[in-house]
Amino acid sequence: MLHKIINLTVRDVRFPTSLEQHGSDAMHTDPDYSAAYVVLDTDSGLKGFGLTFTLGKGTEIVVCAIQSLAGLVVGKSLQEIVSNFRGFYRLLTSDGQMRWLGPEKGVIHLATAAVLNAVWDLWARAESKPLWKLLVDMDPKAVVSCIDFRYITDVLTEEEALDILMKAREDKQQREDQMLKEGYPAYNTSCAWLGYSDQQLKQLCTDALKDGWTKFKVKVGADLDDDIRRCRLIRQMIGPRNTLMIDANQRWDVAEAISWVSRLAEVKPLWIEEPTSPDDILGHAAISKALAPLGIGVATGEQCHNRVMFKQLLQVSALQFVQIDSCRLGSVNENLAVLLMAHKFKVPVCPHAGGVGLCELVQHLILFDYICVSANLSNRMCEYVDHLHEHFTSPVVIQNACYMPPKDPGYSCEMLESSVKKHQYPEGDVWKLQMKK
Amino acid sequence: MLHKIINLTVRDVRFPTSLEQHGSDAMHTDPDYSAAYVVLDTDSGLKGFGLTFTLGKGTEIVVCAIQSLAGLVVGKSLQEIVSNFRGFYRLLTSDGQMRWLGPEKGVIHLATAAVLNAVWDLWARAESKPLWKLLVDMDPKAVVSCIDFRYITDVLTEEEALDILMKAREDKQQREDQMLKEGYPAYNTSCAWLGYSDQQLKQLCTDALKDGWTKFKVKVGADLDDDIRRCRLIRQMIGPRNTLMIDANQRWDVAEAISWVSRLAEVKPLWIEEPTSPDDILGHAAISKALAPLGIGVATGEQCHNRVMFKQLLQVSALQFVQIDSCRLGSVNENLAVLLMAHKFKVPVCPHAGGVGLCELVQHLILFDYICVSANLSNRMCEYVDHLHEHFTSPVVIQNACYMPPKDPGYSCEMLESSVKKHQYPEGDVWKLQMKK
Repeated sequence: MLHKIINLTVRDVRFPTSLEQHGSDAMHTDPDYSAAYVVLDTDSGLKGFGLTFTLGKGTEIVVCAIQSLAGLVVGKSLQEIVSNFRGFYRLLTSDGQMRWLGPEKGVIHLATAAVLNAVWDLWARAESKPLWKLLVDMDPKAVVSCIDFRYITDVLTEEEALDILMKAREDKQQREDQMLKEGYPAYNTSCAWLGYSDQQLKQLCTDALKDGWTKFKVKVGADLDDDIRRCRLIRQMIGPRNTLMIDANQRWDVAEAISWVSRLAEVKPLWIEEPTSPDDILGHAAISKALAPLGIGVATGEQCHNRVMFKQLLQVSALQFVQIDSCRLGSVNENLAVLLMAHKFKVPVCPHAGGVGLCELVQHLILFDYICVSANLSNRMCEYVDHLHEHFTSPVVIQNACYMPPKDPGYSCEMLESSVKKHQYPEGDVWKLQMKK
Repeated sequence: MLHKIINLTVRDVRFPTSLEQHGSDAMHTDPDYSAAYVVLDTDSGLKGFGLTFTLGKGTEIVVCAIQSLAGLVVGKSLQEIVSNFRGFYRLLTSDGQMRWLGPEKGVIHLATAAVLNAVWDLWARAESKPLWKLLVDMDPKAVVSCIDFRYITDVLTEEEALDILMKAREDKQQREDQMLKEGYPAYNTSCAWLGYSDQQLKQLCTDALKDGWTKFKVKVGADLDDDIRRCRLIRQMIGPRNTLMIDANQRWDVAEAISWVSRLAEVKPLWIEEPTSPDDILGHAAISKALAPLGIGVATGEQCHNRVMFKQLLQVSALQFVQIDSCRLGSVNENLAVLLMAHKFKVPVCPHAGGVGLCELVQHLILFDYICVSANLSNRMCEYVDHLHEHFTSPVVIQNACYMPPKDPGYSCEMLESSVKKHQYPEGDVWKLQMKK
């Protein structure tokens, strides 16, 4: 079966999360978790579902960009695409006219992610496997053939990538069995959004501890005294043995980041996430160096826009935790490159998730990372946020604070049609209701 | 007069330059020079004109993004905006929902540039001055108040910026007089696009030499033997004393860039422009270091997406020529920050121009740079391409290979309404005709 793609539809789906301050942080005070949601139709009847995550306003721009990319996808068969996936990736990202709008960054790259996520979903469905299993079963040469090595060969060549994958074949089956049994360790960001009251924090933290969570992330960066109070509160709640991370969402300049985080060292955070501009590689390196004596690492990646940026963050030891994102980078293809570079530099990957659909998507990538690349769980964990999973046909399954490997075929980001209809912007019932208020 | 902005219109204007290979390079083989063209209407009747440059396909995405930003502009008065221009810049670039799409990069930043370019045009018209003169006459404190220093204070504080501007006040009038008399030196990129035949190259070069041009740029990067032949030809045509630059438009990885350019060292290029990914700060630094013994500098910037990236390029000596772009960065506001940082690091600014409207716009910025910041012409020149100027109401004036300071009020990017109508995509006559073919 060739599965010729005969149609691409994209819809603007928004959830009014800002009403209750879910997702609020120092830079994004009122996000409405949203998605540009793509469906690929094929002549065989099989469909592919993909999305990219957004924060509300501006989703219409990503939708427009996806429509502009559609012409490069519709008319091609799945077979044709995956038999030269590197070429297809290059086609989407390096069109002689369109690349001016990036290249490989911002709106156009978010759009690329949505389209490619749908293609990977389609491929996994065609093979009747969950995406992680499709990847795990792929020949290393086939995996490597999906990656565009342009601009990263000074750090990782195709041969080196292949070598990493070949070496990790040892005990692979054992790790797959372990994952199926135990799942991949997760941490919890649902307890401490910036807009939550102390009362809410306490209640959510108590509940999470009861549910077996041991790793917690707190949003900081708006007000130092407030941060100290909130972080002490959480540390008190979770005790000295559990893990605490803090996240500033790019609020500071370099010097401010160092002094602010130094003041929070008393609560012993494992990492400070996004201390400054996601573009500031050298800034992150300076912050890493200054905070190392305090035992605090730097984590970043959810707004790191492509493999060239990750390459440099790794080259100058600007981060101690690599936070890949399933919708910011060019889908699985580009994330594979980052997983392999992180492995080469011996930096653990701790994916960004949350939003809408990000947990569903990225769990596949981190399972592949453990089974086929890193073979290591030390200092590794995948973000989890307990929101909006009910809108997916195959929502994530968390057991004992671990992601259990998905079993349904595909990339887990098909949404319930009823949810899509209700939340389509601006015509869905949820938004018509908001506008009446 | 407050000049309240009551309407923003944006149009997709495209010129079919690909038909004759104008603008062709190693990565952009068939550009149709285009613009998302903005007009601001005010209650006083005064208008502001702005644009951002694109390469054809995808302009509709930028148009969509400008429409999404319009709500932040319409309803505000010019007075309100410029009395807190830093705040307004921050409003456009840091909206809690929209910034996810960048931040400050790609489509959303190109859209920001178009909108802010129109605001600056409006301001200059309101003051009945060409933009460069508005800037030159501004109090240094007022200039500095237009800049968002977020994420660059580790390299340039507001106080340092003010200090640079205060120091350059000496002999300012003399430099202004000099510019009005002699103009600002330019170099020529019209002769050697990659798609041109050797015959065309020779003819254009002969003509340009007759017109007094002494500095020439050649596109390279597609084929080494071809590059050697073309570069030798041009060097032979212009002789040993004139200046030759080469431009690879991001074609290479780091090692390839070094070996390829080393092979072209015999033609003594002043710089290699965009040897690799615009995001690869460390890559540019490695290339700079390797080519320095050959006397070849590295130039980049036309796709450097914001001040944070320029900051780092300067921090690690990754470039020897800073190529600001009037439409890639957040308009005058962000370019001011880059001019001041470049001055601090003693790196000359040689603006990117060409496309459509880029020469018209950037000449204002480089005049300000010379008169109020650098006070230096050594190793400095502004790109010039002889295309599409006839579509503007105040086209650039070149005399003896120099940009003569514009005299009309505004930022020089108002297009002839007849040109806009004819080239609007897809409904303009030019495109209706193409589609019939």
